[in-house]
Amino acid sequence: MHRTMPKGRLEAFSDGVIAIIITIMVLELKVPHETTIEALKPILPVFLSYVLSFIYVGIYWNNHHHMMHVARGVTGGVLWANLHLLFWLSLVPFVTGWMGENHFEAVPSALYGVVLLMAGVAYVILQYAILHCPGGNPVLERALGRDVKGKLAMTLYAAAIGLSFVSTWISGALYVFVAMMWLVPDRRIVKAMAEAPAAAPEEH
Amino acid sequence: MHRTMPKGRLEAFSDGVIAIIITIMVLELKVPHETTIEALKPILPVFLSYVLSFIYVGIYWNNHHHMMHVARGVTGGVLWANLHLLFWLSLVPFVTGWMGENHFEAVPSALYGVVLLMAGVAYVILQYAILHCPGGNPVLERALGRDVKGKLAMTLYAAAIGLSFVSTWISGALYVFVAMMWLVPDRRIVKAMAEAPAAAPEEH
Amino acid sequence: MHRTMPKGRLEAFSDGVIAIIITIMVLELKVPHETTIEALKPILPVFLSYVLSFIYVGIYWNNHHHMMHVARGVTGGVLWANLHLLFWLSLVPFVTGWMGENHFEAVPSALYGVVLLMAGVAYVILQYAILHCPGGNPVLERALGRDVKGKLAMTLYAAAIGLSFVSTWISGALYVFVAMMWLVPDRRIVKAMAEAPAAAPEEH
Amino acid sequence: MHRTMPKGRLEAFSDGVIAIIITIMVLELKVPHETTIEALKPILPVFLSYVLSFIYVGIYWNNHHHMMHVARGVTGGVLWANLHLLFWLSLVPFVTGWMGENHFEAVPSALYGVVLLMAGVAYVILQYAILHCPGGNPVLERALGRDVKGKLAMTLYAAAIGLSFVSTWISGALYVFVAMMWLVPDRRIVKAMAEAPAAAPEEH
Repeated sequence: MHRTMPKGRLEAFSDGVIAIIITIMVLELKVPHETTIEALKPILPVFLSYVLSFIYVGIYWNNHHHMMHVARGVTGGVLWANLHLLFWLSLVPFVTGWMGENHFEAVPSALYGVVLLMAGVAYVILQYAILHCPGGNPVLERALGRDVKGKLAMTLYAAAIGLSFVSTWISGALYVFVAMMWLVPDRRIVKAMAEAPAAAPEEH
Repeated sequence: MHRTMPKGRLEAFSDGVIAIIITIMVLELKVPHETTIEALKPILPVFLSYVLSFIYVGIYWNNHHHMMHVARGVTGGVLWANLHLLFWLSLVPFVTGWMGENHFEAVPSALYGVVLLMAGVAYVILQYAILHCPGGNPVLERALGRDVKGKLAMTLYAAAIGLSFVSTWISGALYVFVAMMWLVPDRRIVKAMAEAPAAAPEEH
Repeated sequence: MHRTMPKGRLEAFSDGVIAIIITIMVLELKVPHETTIEALKPILPVFLSYVLSFIYVGIYWNNHHHMMHVARGVTGGVLWANLHLLFWLSLVPFVTGWMGENHFEAVPSALYGVVLLMAGVAYVILQYAILHCPGGNPVLERALGRDVKGKLAMTLYAAAIGLSFVSTWISGALYVFVAMMWLVPDRRIVKAMAEAPAAAPEEH
Repeated sequence: MHRTMPKGRLEAFSDGVIAIIITIMVLELKVPHETTIEALKPILPVFLSYVLSFIYVGIYWNNHHHMMHVARGVTGGVLWANLHLLFWLSLVPFVTGWMGENHFEAVPSALYGVVLLMAGVAYVILQYAILHCPGGNPVLERALGRDVKGKLAMTLYAAAIGLSFVSTWISGALYVFVAMMWLVPDRRIVKAMAEAPAAAPEEH
């Protein structure tokens, strides 16, 4: 008989890694030597890319929070699927810095999309691993439905990667648009929870 | 029916982010190459701004601790209001470094105030989000009253921003004064808790 | 009478340290100044060594997770054995950076193996400390058996250290091989847990 | 009536800050550009000071762990006493780097002692705050007794500060000696716990 383990440490470890990722990005904001307002101008694109990435990482934490809230336990497979997601998120500071310091040029903007796309793929794999834990997860299953939102986001990332070479304004606009789309937290899970009061998490 | 989620992960994630913010500021204290006591002198303003920011971030953690202690659960809105607060706090190391390395000049001192002001605004929004969770929060409501302390702090930040251009001694003194004012932890919450023993948090 | 303490904080502290270790390695990926795909080429070995070390640290976290899950409490000795393990893991970013920036040359590759070997030894000591906590730990004992996997890994690390001076391709291949070997999480513990339902952890 | 709050978040936040402090020290170990064993020689004093500081921070975490284990709850005063301790610990990476990069010269060695001494003072204040929480803490009180060990450590730090200007070999030896003295975890608490089974922590 397979058994699941409590999810507490997976949550704590993910919280730690995501907290560090979201915070070390700010180290890319190098303190300027002058003390005028103009001295802040060259930092502006770095700052804007920081804001965008902060929101993206925030979205991942938020959705992760909602999804793990309805998970009933974890298996070895879930642990690795989660580490895989954290791996791609850990590359966000690098691509954010590269894009920001180069004023949103083509290749860095495309690579930013690649990392977002891979993080999206990793999130889907994690969802899949949780859905296939022993006992299944009907609440999450109902909440996801056909996961239109997830599929749309990944299609738009893929489009943005290609369109980076046409105009980084378009790809940038797409990244902002997908972020806005996700800013509304996964109400599907909240809704599915409300409809299925009996499917409360097994433990802590 | 709306439901709230347990607050444990929001607390853990906030603890992580605030712990990192408070600690990476110390990285601005660059190790000097000489080994005399004089070699520490140029670091003194950086050190003083580190102390000030450590206290400010400590105050936020402390008040956050007290406020979340009486929160009864979280919603998607609270999660985002909290991320918004963490965003502004994450900028504290940057403005601390800028102000410290430039011996408290006008523009960096003003920007320091802007970040403190925005963090204050974000904190008020988070308070509001918690007060408007399903079921309300009478303990927090009573503790805050008309929130004179919060409003005074923000007025003083705004004044300090403007006064930075007159004298950074005045703005600096105001930042220190507000910090002192908050160093006394939010006894209002402790008091309101003592008066309303039945309003204990719903869940860990 | 000896008593054990709850394991919650040891887990939380380890999660924090490992989360930081796994994340600061990404800081070695220095943002290039050009914006071409070619500009990423010199970073490739750094990236590959990052991937390898991410997997290794992930494996340690994963196995630590499984092992602590069946631990029934901690003693002062376990706390120190755990800190000793974290010490060696904390050196992984340094040796990863040295190896990656120097395209897997002999001495850095060997030192990488030394750190992996010492972390392996530290892990064995931690296992030993947990097995010898008051009351013992029959589940972990059964799961480990003669710990063939652990002994094999350490033999291969030792071999890789020596073989680094023959060819870093061989030592690199051995590091990848051992990682693959561990990627399968410690099913022994899951299996032993399933067979001994009564040996559940004493406390959260 | 005064009430205490649960100690969970104070522990989690302290774990986070201490985990970061212990880990960012390793960033001072700069990756050398050559790939010979000789290239590691200049790093040796940095490495040795890293080991010493890792042990010191580990000791603080360990003792903090034992002390908070018997604490029955926290007050606003305890929160601030704890932040004060974390402040001094946060300066350890700075003084470690200064001492290590300058081969244990007089002023850096003395400053290292100052930070250790202040951390020791902060720890005593935290002990005092916990002992004076509403309801007191007879277990901790009995465990501490006259706190000979704590007083001896601080006397030795003070001596080492002065002796740094005579010979840094003496001050270094004293730092190592005090660390060894503390490496034995606070058995006093374990012992006092065993003698007073009824004084278990109030919550969580």
